[in-house]
Amino acid sequence: MNRIEPSRALYEEGVIGVIPAKQGKSVYLKAGQILKLINTHGSQVVDTWAFNIADLREFMSMEHSRASMMKITPAVGDALVTNHRRPILTIVEDTSPGVHDTLIAACDRYRYEELGAGPHHENCSGNLSRALADLGCQIVGAPCPLNLFMNVNVNARGGHIEFLAPLSKAGQYVSLRAHIDQLVVMSACPQDLTPVNALRPAEVHFTVLSK
Amino acid sequence: MNRIEPSRALYEEGVIGVIPAKQGKSVYLKAGQILKLINTHGSQVVDTWAFNIADLREFMSMEHSRASMMKITPAVGDALVTNHRRPILTIVEDTSPGVHDTLIAACDRYRYEELGAGPHHENCSGNLSRALADLGCQIVGAPCPLNLFMNVNVNARGGHIEFLAPLSKAGQYVSLRAHIDQLVVMSACPQDLTPVNALRPAEVHFTVLSK
Repeated sequence: MNRIEPSRALYEEGVIGVIPAKQGKSVYLKAGQILKLINTHGSQVVDTWAFNIADLREFMSMEHSRASMMKITPAVGDALVTNHRRPILTIVEDTSPGVHDTLIAACDRYRYEELGAGPHHENCSGNLSRALADLGCQIVGAPCPLNLFMNVNVNARGGHIEFLAPLSKAGQYVSLRAHIDQLVVMSACPQDLTPVNALRPAEVHFTVLSK
Repeated sequence: MNRIEPSRALYEEGVIGVIPAKQGKSVYLKAGQILKLINTHGSQVVDTWAFNIADLREFMSMEHSRASMMKITPAVGDALVTNHRRPILTIVEDTSPGVHDTLIAACDRYRYEELGAGPHHENCSGNLSRALADLGCQIVGAPCPLNLFMNVNVNARGGHIEFLAPLSKAGQYVSLRAHIDQLVVMSACPQDLTPVNALRPAEVHFTVLSK
């Protein structure tokens, strides 16, 4: 199924939602609404996807967004675009140091197998699949997520990258404005074997505001 | 359909294949074989995809490869991996200056519409779809390609990027060794509105060699 009925929307405007540590959550945004994602305890990465509610085959794409923004890391005022090159989410506020990632795949069972944690470790790709399955939908694989608060340092000279602990502090937040009706799926990244979440996966909170 | 029958292989070992300017071509590689891709006229970008022949849902993934290589640009000795984090192609030789891109989406009809060229401009995503359709297969969207010879300069400080003409010269080549049986699809990028192919889209050649 490629469509989600808006009647299955998960959160009302103004309500504070929680994404428990290591878990995922989806939220329906109408065009113009703002999603405020709060890094409640600081140093928690949130893998974030956005899908056109009318056709899940159109989704926020990092490789298209980089070409549109002409930069690797979106900042306030930058629009992330879909694989159809339409704006889907614009960052309208960011009280964190603005360190986010667009380069790295969501963690998945293969990643944790590599790290010796076996096939049953919680993972962001699984959280995405589960969130969509809960709405009766299925996609093949996970698009590259917008990894909010993820600190991937890029050394331009050799193009080498390194994974570091987030620079965000407790209570800092990012707000994103929806350009189209969409489903956003967020995963509080369960990575506890690398510095990505400062080794302490934690809950985060979010709310949906009107324009 | 998620499988391709190897009997539909397109090129025999040692034969020189041509990818006409602005077009795409697919080639079947057995594990251990080497694909040599020759930038015949220089300054031509080749968008390259690789799919597990037994299941097209497993494919070469730039966002997984960057995490595996811990760098943005693969060099000789680096393995590109699939979305299942398995090696699929290793760069074994590169006589070009080694400037390749993993950041930017394939051009598509939406890109040319943006650039004012209308919906019918040749494009790499369309070339991929057509190559797969010719084999009786279909996928949703195009994975981010390995953009061989594409010169995308990254400024680490602000993360800004810019599209430049390739640095490769006529006759320079890249050789990639297959880790698994796979279908490789290559597109001689038809971009003639930005400096990506030095404004002169051209043919390229390739051959398949034994290990």
